[in-house]
Amino acid sequence: MEKSESTKIEIAETSKERKGKAPLLGAVPPVAAVHGRGRYKRGISIFDLILRISAVSSALGATVIMGTAEQTLPFFTQFFQFQASYDDLPTFTFFVVAMAIVTGYLVLSIPFSIVCIARPLAVGPRLLLIILDTVFVTLATAAAGSSAAIVYLAHNGNSNANWLAICQQFTDFCQASSLAVVGAFVTVVLLIFAIFLSAFALRKH
Amino acid sequence: MEKSESTKIEIAETSKERKGKAPLLGAVPPVAAVHGRGRYKRGISIFDLILRISAVSSALGATVIMGTAEQTLPFFTQFFQFQASYDDLPTFTFFVVAMAIVTGYLVLSIPFSIVCIARPLAVGPRLLLIILDTVFVTLATAAAGSSAAIVYLAHNGNSNANWLAICQQFTDFCQASSLAVVGAFVTVVLLIFAIFLSAFALRKH
Repeated sequence: MEKSESTKIEIAETSKERKGKAPLLGAVPPVAAVHGRGRYKRGISIFDLILRISAVSSALGATVIMGTAEQTLPFFTQFFQFQASYDDLPTFTFFVVAMAIVTGYLVLSIPFSIVCIARPLAVGPRLLLIILDTVFVTLATAAAGSSAAIVYLAHNGNSNANWLAICQQFTDFCQASSLAVVGAFVTVVLLIFAIFLSAFALRKH
Repeated sequence: MEKSESTKIEIAETSKERKGKAPLLGAVPPVAAVHGRGRYKRGISIFDLILRISAVSSALGATVIMGTAEQTLPFFTQFFQFQASYDDLPTFTFFVVAMAIVTGYLVLSIPFSIVCIARPLAVGPRLLLIILDTVFVTLATAAAGSSAAIVYLAHNGNSNANWLAICQQFTDFCQASSLAVVGAFVTVVLLIFAIFLSAFALRKH
């Protein structure tokens, strides 16, 4: 069924080109060439959709893990109870907000990816995707990198600046935030591959 | 002189296409279309070269400022002298290494950008540039983001984790590292625009 649908669309496009655009361009590419190029680009688009769905799950996972990471220590003083959650560290708050935005973008980008599967030779949606992907991969990397720096500090501390490691006390919290950072880096890698695919699909050949 | 050179090259390409590639492609695009598209893509390539040269200077500036940031406090105890340099904080060491690599890549990418100006319709160098740009913009963002998190911590401290602000003592060092982070973010923005330009130049239109 997939196959018969694809054939129909490509025939429609070719006949449109023959009718409308042929006198302007001066030449009609042979039907076989359009078909082969369309199939190649459709394959790229399907792989792009798979990458995006994986990226949604890793980004959502990172957001949720960091957002729900919380630990209360079993001992407390008269005035203070020792507790850690993401909003105690501004960098982790930035992480949660940024990764939530990236997740939202990735969900919204899925329809555009589907448009690229349905119309493999369309340039507009691909150009939009590659530009927005570049912006959001930067946002995700900034979130992942800054939180990685803080997680590293929480694990190891820094004797030069007299910052002590807090992971000896807050083990569960540190484990959860490390996992969230890994999820964010997985999202970054998946988005980089999505940009590669868009670049290959954009080139004329 | 620029103009006559550009005309010469395009005539050469067109005649080559007429001789060699015409039977394979089945059609020769009109000379006027090739000329217009080449000029448009050459304009993009020249702007790309300008962006790259600016990015080299901002990346180099960020590397040098962070690498030479050093401050020795005027007071000391019997056993210890208070001193701060980039290698006291692992994140700043990563920043210097990563930004040095990005600077090296940007310098090496300039010849490819010049090839794109000389041969505006070539696809290979552009595809190479957009893929490598994506990788190195991620590296630069990770360096900038992680150091921004540490600089923020050095300025403000964090009472929840009991990390004290060190910028009250090391004012010059903090100022230099903040400036380096700003330089890295400028590099990131310039590289993002270079990716946009490559995407626009890659699309067939």
